[in-house]
Amino acid sequence: MNNRLHDIPLLPSERVDDLLTHNLHIIQSDEVFSFSMDAVLLARFASIPPRGRVLDLCTGNGVIPLLLTTRTSAKLEGIEIQPRLADMARRSVAMNDLQEKITIHEGDLRTLHETAGYGVYDAITVNPPYMPLNGSDLKMNTHQAMARHEIGCTLEDVIQAAVRLVRTGGKVSMVHKPQRLADIISLMRKYRLEPKNIRFVHPRAHLEANMVLIEAARDGKPEVRVQPPLIVYTDDNQYCQEIMDIYFGSKEGQS
Amino acid sequence: MNNRLHDIPLLPSERVDDLLTHNLHIIQSDEVFSFSMDAVLLARFASIPPRGRVLDLCTGNGVIPLLLTTRTSAKLEGIEIQPRLADMARRSVAMNDLQEKITIHEGDLRTLHETAGYGVYDAITVNPPYMPLNGSDLKMNTHQAMARHEIGCTLEDVIQAAVRLVRTGGKVSMVHKPQRLADIISLMRKYRLEPKNIRFVHPRAHLEANMVLIEAARDGKPEVRVQPPLIVYTDDNQYCQEIMDIYFGSKEGQS
Repeated sequence: MNNRLHDIPLLPSERVDDLLTHNLHIIQSDEVFSFSMDAVLLARFASIPPRGRVLDLCTGNGVIPLLLTTRTSAKLEGIEIQPRLADMARRSVAMNDLQEKITIHEGDLRTLHETAGYGVYDAITVNPPYMPLNGSDLKMNTHQAMARHEIGCTLEDVIQAAVRLVRTGGKVSMVHKPQRLADIISLMRKYRLEPKNIRFVHPRAHLEANMVLIEAARDGKPEVRVQPPLIVYTDDNQYCQEIMDIYFGSKEGQS
Repeated sequence: MNNRLHDIPLLPSERVDDLLTHNLHIIQSDEVFSFSMDAVLLARFASIPPRGRVLDLCTGNGVIPLLLTTRTSAKLEGIEIQPRLADMARRSVAMNDLQEKITIHEGDLRTLHETAGYGVYDAITVNPPYMPLNGSDLKMNTHQAMARHEIGCTLEDVIQAAVRLVRTGGKVSMVHKPQRLADIISLMRKYRLEPKNIRFVHPRAHLEANMVLIEAARDGKPEVRVQPPLIVYTDDNQYCQEIMDIYFGSKEGQS
């Protein structure tokens, strides 16, 4: 158990969850933000350099930078537009004594290049809001709505920000809904991010994909590889081996 | 056995193969053109209306229109630029007594709209040449080279032709290599074909996809569905049940 675990104050509705790897912990709240399997899969799918600078856009409670500490010695940064979530992320970083490895920015990804500069990151990850605003039923609270709907930024904003911030040849990895695949690919192309590596996640072998992991290279050569599908549940309703390894694998991590 | 089977002349190197459904036969030649699993899968994947007009671009020896006769009462047409292949296709049509259902055009898909007209087809299928010309090693003969490389038409030519020839809301279904996925989706978008339905074919569960089936609707609403993956071989080196059903299923067909 981490030494700092009991020093960090929790706000109402917050709890501390175990990230089940490298003794990492994270502050969550069902009323504000809890990470999902999407973020965990992206943190494993993304090509991450061993050193350099890596940025997570729409970082929420910082789950992706926290998980990436197990895979790289790079300097990790996250940006989150909601002050309440950026604060959660910073407290989780402190709780794990990772202030030297992770910096959380509170701000708007659309203007980050004005302070950070162009092309300064070696890799970028993003688990953006999935749902377009048009016709959405926004009954949830503002925190949840901003994490799920394109309120603070659209898919095009995210891709434009990524291409401004990543260096030539650097990788941008995203998790999204397969329904948006044509939007994602055509927007990436529009902004000179070349899709290189795609993986679809299917809940079961006979069902449509409900998640897509996609990695693009800035100014890359056009050639897509479609990875083996990830089938989450086996025919007998168990997690598949790969998911078991992720959630219940060696405490020494699964980089 | 079909009555006409022995009335149709074969040229040197040609043979007659059984299409294993509805007693259909086809003229093939390893030196000129033989269909592959790609065409068979496309003929099952494509949305085909029960009536109307359906066109197969790059029809080769006519395998797709022949197979589609088992699924629809629509009038079927195929266009092929190579006279030798168009002749093979016509003889296969005659061999199966299908002249009332299938018409083979010999010509260039880039100019077919000048005679056929714009927006006259309810659905279009295409198994185009997969390989770009740049840097290709073209040691094979001309017939094979034109079927496999973008000599007679590029991917953009195929998509432009399809969008000219299909009606609004009509479907265009293609089989291609996953490496070209970003090219296919961005060209479809450029010409107002909206990708709606995608299926990846993997040789084995743990291998990358080696084929993509993609269907677009002319002026359709943006929303992609990614079908369950088709895994061709099981872990014990047998064809999966779906492939078994296609190749060795009921003689009454698998529409």
